[in-house]
Amino acid sequence: MSDEHQPTTPPEKHGPARNLDAHRARYAQRTAGMTASEVRALFAVANRPEVVSLAGGMPNLAALPLDSLAGEVASLIAQDGQGALQYGSAHGVPELREQICDVMAMEGISAHPDDVMVTVGSQMALDMVTRIFCDPGDVVLAEGPSYVGALGSFSAYQAEVVHVAMDDDGLQPEALREAIGNVTARGGRIKFLYTIPNFHNPGGVTMALNRRAEVLEICAQHGILVVEDNPYGLLGFDGQVYPPLRSLDADNVVYLGSFSKTFASGLRVGWVLAPHAVREKLVLAAESATLCPPTLNQMIVSRYLTTHDWKGQIKAFREQYRERRDAMLSALEQHMPEGCTWNTPDGGFFVWVTVPEGIDTKAMLPRAVTQRVAYASGTGFYTDGFGSRQMRLSFCYPTPERIREGVRRLANTLTEERELVRTFGSIPQREVPGPQAPSPDTA
Amino acid sequence: MSDEHQPTTPPEKHGPARNLDAHRARYAQRTAGMTASEVRALFAVANRPEVVSLAGGMPNLAALPLDSLAGEVASLIAQDGQGALQYGSAHGVPELREQICDVMAMEGISAHPDDVMVTVGSQMALDMVTRIFCDPGDVVLAEGPSYVGALGSFSAYQAEVVHVAMDDDGLQPEALREAIGNVTARGGRIKFLYTIPNFHNPGGVTMALNRRAEVLEICAQHGILVVEDNPYGLLGFDGQVYPPLRSLDADNVVYLGSFSKTFASGLRVGWVLAPHAVREKLVLAAESATLCPPTLNQMIVSRYLTTHDWKGQIKAFREQYRERRDAMLSALEQHMPEGCTWNTPDGGFFVWVTVPEGIDTKAMLPRAVTQRVAYASGTGFYTDGFGSRQMRLSFCYPTPERIREGVRRLANTLTEERELVRTFGSIPQREVPGPQAPSPDTA
Repeated sequence: MSDEHQPTTPPEKHGPARNLDAHRARYAQRTAGMTASEVRALFAVANRPEVVSLAGGMPNLAALPLDSLAGEVASLIAQDGQGALQYGSAHGVPELREQICDVMAMEGISAHPDDVMVTVGSQMALDMVTRIFCDPGDVVLAEGPSYVGALGSFSAYQAEVVHVAMDDDGLQPEALREAIGNVTARGGRIKFLYTIPNFHNPGGVTMALNRRAEVLEICAQHGILVVEDNPYGLLGFDGQVYPPLRSLDADNVVYLGSFSKTFASGLRVGWVLAPHAVREKLVLAAESATLCPPTLNQMIVSRYLTTHDWKGQIKAFREQYRERRDAMLSALEQHMPEGCTWNTPDGGFFVWVTVPEGIDTKAMLPRAVTQRVAYASGTGFYTDGFGSRQMRLSFCYPTPERIREGVRRLANTLTEERELVRTFGSIPQREVPGPQAPSPDTA
Repeated sequence: MSDEHQPTTPPEKHGPARNLDAHRARYAQRTAGMTASEVRALFAVANRPEVVSLAGGMPNLAALPLDSLAGEVASLIAQDGQGALQYGSAHGVPELREQICDVMAMEGISAHPDDVMVTVGSQMALDMVTRIFCDPGDVVLAEGPSYVGALGSFSAYQAEVVHVAMDDDGLQPEALREAIGNVTARGGRIKFLYTIPNFHNPGGVTMALNRRAEVLEICAQHGILVVEDNPYGLLGFDGQVYPPLRSLDADNVVYLGSFSKTFASGLRVGWVLAPHAVREKLVLAAESATLCPPTLNQMIVSRYLTTHDWKGQIKAFREQYRERRDAMLSALEQHMPEGCTWNTPDGGFFVWVTVPEGIDTKAMLPRAVTQRVAYASGTGFYTDGFGSRQMRLSFCYPTPERIREGVRRLANTLTEERELVRTFGSIPQREVPGPQAPSPDTA
């Protein structure tokens, strides 16, 4: 894709000369992979209010106690503004790191605050972990499909992603063994397994408990680190909390957590829990990335955890998301044409849908947006071109009513698409290089 | 240095087993360069209240109107919390990007908000610029000495730094030509010149106006991009504002700005202004780094710029820093032993001191801390081992009284050190690999 296809800056705005990139020859090799997709253009349209977006991963913050939070933040700035507005350490605010250990204790993780580093969202944790471990050409194993933002970080460090198949019970140990065997046989160097065991993004599935020990054992046996990403772990719809991999293995698991889904995404406060020596490397890496995470934001989270019923708030989020999940599942049952399948997530934000053969979800997206519904095409969640018959539907942000309307529109689009396919055969589309989805959580 | 020398985690805390890094063989090549320095250990001591720290680059926030700021932030969260606490775009909040153009207009820069990307401090801007431009082995030209945080980013991407000499008028064009010639002759690939033209960190000098056009011309002629870092540009003590390089060349300069020194460092709001196509790459890179900068922080800065007399606040900062600069210069005049030289900064945070031959500022630092004064040894600001006779003294954070006391203690330390050198010859020290200074702005 050349730059002419960027939607945010029509050519007439800057004049044609500016669309020629005079700096093209100077970019690093990794930058060649950074190409805005055509899908990105669609999302500008998809964000219009008349479109029901089932595409983004934005949490619904309507339930947050904004007034009391405003009061707490005001008193924080008035009383401790000199500290809150000043640089901090790259390691993070000590009090918050202690509280993060309390949060993780809810999941059965026993950890020392010193082994926690606060990050600018868990995206930064992903980026730092990849930074310290991955040379160009190193292999990262990741579920297929996997989180778009993780794939973006791996790509930024020129790591090769090898997908490992999932089923309804999550990552398949046998597929993991096979992937390790294949990569090793061709001389590839595997740095870590990246996994989202709970309420997977985008897959919506959860790794079965008996598989967890097996996955850990396979990785330990082959000297492969496990990077566990667990942003949704406390959002099980029945209040169930599955034991994170980190609770089963403290030495070979790097754990990523986040307040984006349990409190407020716009604060960008996440964390990484790592074995001591790894955490030290992470702090040094983080200094070169942002110097330190924003002090104010850390203190806001710390204060929120101290002054608010944060467990009650998580329960409220869980119930709200369960209601939306239910709305989506019943609408899918009611409206989706024959041949579509999907899973039933018991937590998190997403349903993963497979459409009938012949339909290409990426090719169909413009027509869906014309019908005023948006989704994330499955291809963005794979690095190997798979996913054209899949789509991710998010139930986190729209109201149940909007979700039902969105699914109805999507079902109509699919029905029409199937007619097109029956009449004309499968619909070709232009190949688009680069990531196939927009900014992973924000669109 | 092995991990046993980390000051923050004494061995007894974790038990000896945890100090052996089981993950050592897995790190990326770049991680080998990430080693905590012994100097870092000292800074834990240097942060004790009885020690006058002339080492850090923390702005003095005492003058900020915390009460009215607290009120504004509270009303922001109460009225617009759903937006402020939600994900945003990696590009940044549009209103703030417009206001950033107004701020840059004060320096004579004419820019379009679309060409601005908001970052998590300008450290992240540095990191993103290096990410999109530098392959391992690429050369970055930088003043000698240069900003520690920039050197850290360049090192993280395995770029080689070639220093270019400065004098009291800043970067020397002749030295720049020579460096380019040398690197080119050995087949090196120069990606950009990194420069801090105004009130240099750590050098304290400003690039003469007649040199700016010349530096730009040399770079344009050799196809070298210019990365201009200008955090102190509005902190000229007489209210003077020197024209940034970007105001003279919009096509070949990437400009980095920050609210850390003119408002509040702990919010971590900086920005990069880049030619359009480069800015697009930067946004894609930033998505993989942090998804988006914190929305709340951007809205706080935006509201502050709207509701507060931010120009008056900058004037207050300027006057405060001028008073501190004066306190430091007069104390240096009064106390420093013969053979020490320093410059007279007319803006910014730093004085650059050269000590008599035979004295090694890095070796002396533990003895200075014993005398209850800390500084940043010059070696941290070079990648080539230079700087052992230099030190950076910061006048930004301590009060004038503390500055005078600190300089008095430093002078005593130097005098005793000179006696030691006279008696025993120069004092050897152990070689310490890796960055020689702690977290660049926070210690």
